[in-house]
Amino acid sequence: MDRIPILQMGNLLLVTIQVDMHDRLAMTLQDDLTAKISQTHARGVLIDISSLEMVDSFIGRMLANIAAMSRVLDAQTVVVGMQPAVAITLVELGMSLPGVRMALNVEKGMALLRASLTEDNVVEVEESDDASRQD
Amino acid sequence: MDRIPILQMGNLLLVTIQVDMHDRLAMTLQDDLTAKISQTHARGVLIDISSLEMVDSFIGRMLANIAAMSRVLDAQTVVVGMQPAVAITLVELGMSLPGVRMALNVEKGMALLRASLTEDNVVEVEESDDASRQD
Repeated sequence: MDRIPILQMGNLLLVTIQVDMHDRLAMTLQDDLTAKISQTHARGVLIDISSLEMVDSFIGRMLANIAAMSRVLDAQTVVVGMQPAVAITLVELGMSLPGVRMALNVEKGMALLRASLTEDNVVEVEESDDASRQD
Repeated sequence: MDRIPILQMGNLLLVTIQVDMHDRLAMTLQDDLTAKISQTHARGVLIDISSLEMVDSFIGRMLANIAAMSRVLDAQTVVVGMQPAVAITLVELGMSLPGVRMALNVEKGMALLRASLTEDNVVEVEESDDASRQD
């Protein structure tokens, strides 16, 4: 297992994390994901962690890093499919994953991303309308 | 790694195979997938094998089995993302995966499934039209 596959669906990217992450795999994922965002002009990243039975501080930090990197590249990140037990453990450990948006499953995550991308577009259109009016 | 996650997207299911399959994992995947098709009324199954660097006769048989089981449950299966080297090896080994449809990537696979599901619906509608005319 050298790398985690990144699937493109329209302007969204989907990453399913199934295996235990180690340093090198996490670095490779960050490299691949940022390259893919830049290459495909993706606007959203979905990270599915439904098969993870444990999320430690390493994975938590990786998720936060990916979200931050994506944001810099103008893509939004949503983490989906967290198991209830994982949520309990995370909060008990004092890790609330600030800056990372969550959704119950891939479908809801896609809906969330699509809705917020549409809002962005509306804002962009309104802004360009304003700009054209000022001309 | 107990099970491979199955992601639902509308009436399609997506399975990303990232790890080496062994007997028990393959059985679990077949059980989970058939249960999920029946539970979600999914009409299509996408199996992404882009991270597999080798497809042996075991995996080949598993893909064919999944396609056959899905067909019985009225869902179509498309295998996506096969690496070029894997395709060469498969054909050299005389395994051409009969009965399994392929697509280059997840996007094209989704488009293929959506198109053939739409065709099915058209046929169903036409048939019910014919039936109503005969009444």
